[in-house]
Amino acid sequence: MPYRAPTAEFEFLLTHVVGFDRVTATERHAEATPETVRALLGEAGRICEEVIAPLNRAGDLQPSRLENGVVRTPPGYAEGYRAMAEAGMTAISADPEHGGLGLPQTVATCVNDMAGAACLALQMNPLMTQGQIEALEHHGSDDLKALYLPKLTSGEWCGTMNLTEPQAGSDVGALTTKAEPAGDGTYRITGQKIYISWGDNDFTGNVVHLVLARLPDAPRGTKGISLFLVPKLIPDAAGNPGVANALKVVSLEHKLGLHGSPTCVMQYEGATGWLVGAENDGMAAMFTMMNNARLGVAVHGVSVADAATQAAVAYAAGRRQGRPLIEGGTGTILDHADVRRMLMEMKAETFAARAMALDLAVSIDLGHAGDAAQAARAAVLTPIAKAYGTETGIKVANMGIQVHGGMGFIEETGVAQYLRDVRVSAIYEGTNGIQAMDLAGRKMSDGGAAIGALVDAVEAEALDAGGDLGAEVAAMAAALRAATGDMLGRELNDRFGGAVPYMMGFARVMGALYHLRAARAGSARAALARFYITRLLPEAHGLFAQARQGAADLYDLSPDDLAA
Amino acid sequence: MPYRAPTAEFEFLLTHVVGFDRVTATERHAEATPETVRALLGEAGRICEEVIAPLNRAGDLQPSRLENGVVRTPPGYAEGYRAMAEAGMTAISADPEHGGLGLPQTVATCVNDMAGAACLALQMNPLMTQGQIEALEHHGSDDLKALYLPKLTSGEWCGTMNLTEPQAGSDVGALTTKAEPAGDGTYRITGQKIYISWGDNDFTGNVVHLVLARLPDAPRGTKGISLFLVPKLIPDAAGNPGVANALKVVSLEHKLGLHGSPTCVMQYEGATGWLVGAENDGMAAMFTMMNNARLGVAVHGVSVADAATQAAVAYAAGRRQGRPLIEGGTGTILDHADVRRMLMEMKAETFAARAMALDLAVSIDLGHAGDAAQAARAAVLTPIAKAYGTETGIKVANMGIQVHGGMGFIEETGVAQYLRDVRVSAIYEGTNGIQAMDLAGRKMSDGGAAIGALVDAVEAEALDAGGDLGAEVAAMAAALRAATGDMLGRELNDRFGGAVPYMMGFARVMGALYHLRAARAGSARAALARFYITRLLPEAHGLFAQARQGAADLYDLSPDDLAA
Repeated sequence: MPYRAPTAEFEFLLTHVVGFDRVTATERHAEATPETVRALLGEAGRICEEVIAPLNRAGDLQPSRLENGVVRTPPGYAEGYRAMAEAGMTAISADPEHGGLGLPQTVATCVNDMAGAACLALQMNPLMTQGQIEALEHHGSDDLKALYLPKLTSGEWCGTMNLTEPQAGSDVGALTTKAEPAGDGTYRITGQKIYISWGDNDFTGNVVHLVLARLPDAPRGTKGISLFLVPKLIPDAAGNPGVANALKVVSLEHKLGLHGSPTCVMQYEGATGWLVGAENDGMAAMFTMMNNARLGVAVHGVSVADAATQAAVAYAAGRRQGRPLIEGGTGTILDHADVRRMLMEMKAETFAARAMALDLAVSIDLGHAGDAAQAARAAVLTPIAKAYGTETGIKVANMGIQVHGGMGFIEETGVAQYLRDVRVSAIYEGTNGIQAMDLAGRKMSDGGAAIGALVDAVEAEALDAGGDLGAEVAAMAAALRAATGDMLGRELNDRFGGAVPYMMGFARVMGALYHLRAARAGSARAALARFYITRLLPEAHGLFAQARQGAADLYDLSPDDLAA
Repeated sequence: MPYRAPTAEFEFLLTHVVGFDRVTATERHAEATPETVRALLGEAGRICEEVIAPLNRAGDLQPSRLENGVVRTPPGYAEGYRAMAEAGMTAISADPEHGGLGLPQTVATCVNDMAGAACLALQMNPLMTQGQIEALEHHGSDDLKALYLPKLTSGEWCGTMNLTEPQAGSDVGALTTKAEPAGDGTYRITGQKIYISWGDNDFTGNVVHLVLARLPDAPRGTKGISLFLVPKLIPDAAGNPGVANALKVVSLEHKLGLHGSPTCVMQYEGATGWLVGAENDGMAAMFTMMNNARLGVAVHGVSVADAATQAAVAYAAGRRQGRPLIEGGTGTILDHADVRRMLMEMKAETFAARAMALDLAVSIDLGHAGDAAQAARAAVLTPIAKAYGTETGIKVANMGIQVHGGMGFIEETGVAQYLRDVRVSAIYEGTNGIQAMDLAGRKMSDGGAAIGALVDAVEAEALDAGGDLGAEVAAMAAALRAATGDMLGRELNDRFGGAVPYMMGFARVMGALYHLRAARAGSARAALARFYITRLLPEAHGLFAQARQGAADLYDLSPDDLAA
């Protein structure tokens, strides 16, 4: 089934659910009028439907490959990328000073949502560039900005993030890539990086790597990490791609999904790099990239959930039954109560996960405009949105396979690819376990103030909404407050034992709030809200029950017991 | 990591959890002494570890393929199949009269568990044969039995099930394959069947198809379906494979997983078939095959869950961290509370799903030995075990990927294959939605007597076990009783709206019971039981809450609303 861009859904969410008017009310984003946003999303949607979506299965069947050290991308990817870049889709929120559209992150989030649904493997490329642009805008020197940002913003060049090493994944502090001062203001970067998405391609004029490495005598752990910009081709005096840098793609990974996206093992052999930010302060810049990327990856989940839901609804509506199942039915498997249940769950989850991503984007935009409370709110929502968005993508893609029955297991149908592609989203940019540790650790380091403010606001709004659904949401917000209090009373590792269920229960409460807001808009919205609040929200009881178990019981089995 | 056969776990479960001694106390199975069973499982385990498991990834990389109308299987499959057949692993429970070992279904279930964990794609083959043997034993004429059973039992020939047609999947009654009497006691079978697992191979002397088809003027729907035996090669007077029958493999499917198992589109073009059972009574024979296959597919989930858990524990225990995470820790990611949580959940779920499969097998064996109450208990447990086993396989394989982090997304690691392979188990032999309809429909047609007896027994045993865990299980059994009562009070389609959550909540209660039994055996078992009962059992509250919603709200969205 052809992908349809959900532009009306975005308009509904921006207007009725996430209060996007607060963003356009700021001086910074006054130009993002409804007409401008509508026109931009309409055009981006058209490109995604017509140009990008047709590349999705082709890229799965003809993966990116390494030929004599050079990455060859799937047929059509170059043209697809160019279409996105020309429409400004690769840098919606980049600074106009360097050619960006300067639009809110919220708008970029809508565009990324559509591009990811159309072809997630290709969309990984601009997502990495967007994180790099933001990192350079915040931490780069004026020279680096002047040289790199215009070309990254235009899409002429693209960017990557180089964090992981074989022995240093979630444990970033264990990385050993070296950076030695060359004496001329540059550095020589030496080491191996793995899992580098889009580490090379055959359609941009240059590839700009941001690489975490250690200076000589740097402190151990994360306090001794610096960030370097390492271009594939070193720009000449005119800023054009010049001589090749001392780096190469060693190999590509064979992955469960995202076959079109080349996941590279990169070798740096004394490559020339430029420091970004202060020495030993690389983690700050990394978190700038990471937070951007975490929202972007949350959206990956939403994208795939939407595409999977569209496909499942279309399949069910066309799959005829030999005999009528219910009176006045459609004569298709849509008449099956359980098929309905699955489709409504897919729609209800997709709606909630998308609303959360956009809610987070709005808080980021307001934070950028100077609202510290919104910035703190965004910090709390980031791990929740990343985990909930990606778990939703996986769950909904999996359910979409189920709706298709035997056809779901056949690759030609295309819905198995959704599950394969989206699976890694729960792992990269910080596994969802790491997100939970961030929420229960760093994001509670204010004594629970930011979380408390968020929960209070949910409860007050739910009580204000009233009715049986409002009462359910308010009651679960109170249960979330209790679970938060329980967390705050525990040692850190004890919190971590229940952090994932706590986070997923938190997501349920937020999801219910978004549905409650949507329910005011009409009967179909209200029916979906009732489904979510009566059927899915109660899961949070079980999740909070698990969160209250802490960590002690998790160490009752010895490693030998686990292996037995 | 090499697969290790869980022979000690089987012995524990048979002895302490599922009461296998009740089976060996019957006259029918008196010969299945602990020593016999131990020796057989030991030898089967050795073959699975040494011969079958090494074929798993090879079969994924080099799928079965169709060459000039003939299926070519992956390298090593022929030898692997032969090793299984020679050890009697393909027909553990078949009647000794035709060369079978005549051992209980419970023992066959243990063997299938190991074979499926070692190489699920290959194990699909004997599983289909086992169902065919059982169907022929119950419904075949003496002539058919005498001719086919010895060769099927020895593994010289193998069997398939031909149910599905393009327009008739879950809706079996819609099938249109024709069977016309030839006048000589045989029939001419004409039609197309799809999704035929192991529809052909290059390592057995014949392939025997059981095909559902319609006689001329048969009643519509499922009441007009008959079952036919249709061999690939028609046996000559001496019973040896003779001339080719008028059937062919048209194509193989390209699937998400199980690449080694050829999933065939079969074309019957006036093929010669023999009636199995009475005319228009094919559904009865089909259910004999199906019930066997449903237990077998439940075990597929258990198999993969076990293999995925073994791999994840081994990976975590070997994945070192740069710095110690907890005092007295291992220095590996095993120290992470959330990694522990995932591993314990994987182990706790695998244990419960395996216990349920074996509990079902024991009830089947006791039912075969003449105990009607146990047969009724088996009928209730079958859909629950099929759904819980397969959902556990999918969930645990998915969690295993997460434990591996980025490595989990790389195909070389082998754990992504587990998820790909097991995904279809929730679909074939009746989707899990169909299982739920069976439980809430047919299996409640006695007014809830069989379910009530099962729930009463769980509650009584939990109360008898006592302690906080016993009390929790008893309380949830009471909640299950209430949910059952609620179901019984509803119209059929209204039950179906909550049937899947009801079934999964039912599974949680049964799983808790098995853990409660195991907890008496020692501290590691007790720790795992506590984990399951305090962390996972509470999910049932949310599931029963959803079950109570019925179906009415599921039709509040129009097909257009769903597509919007």
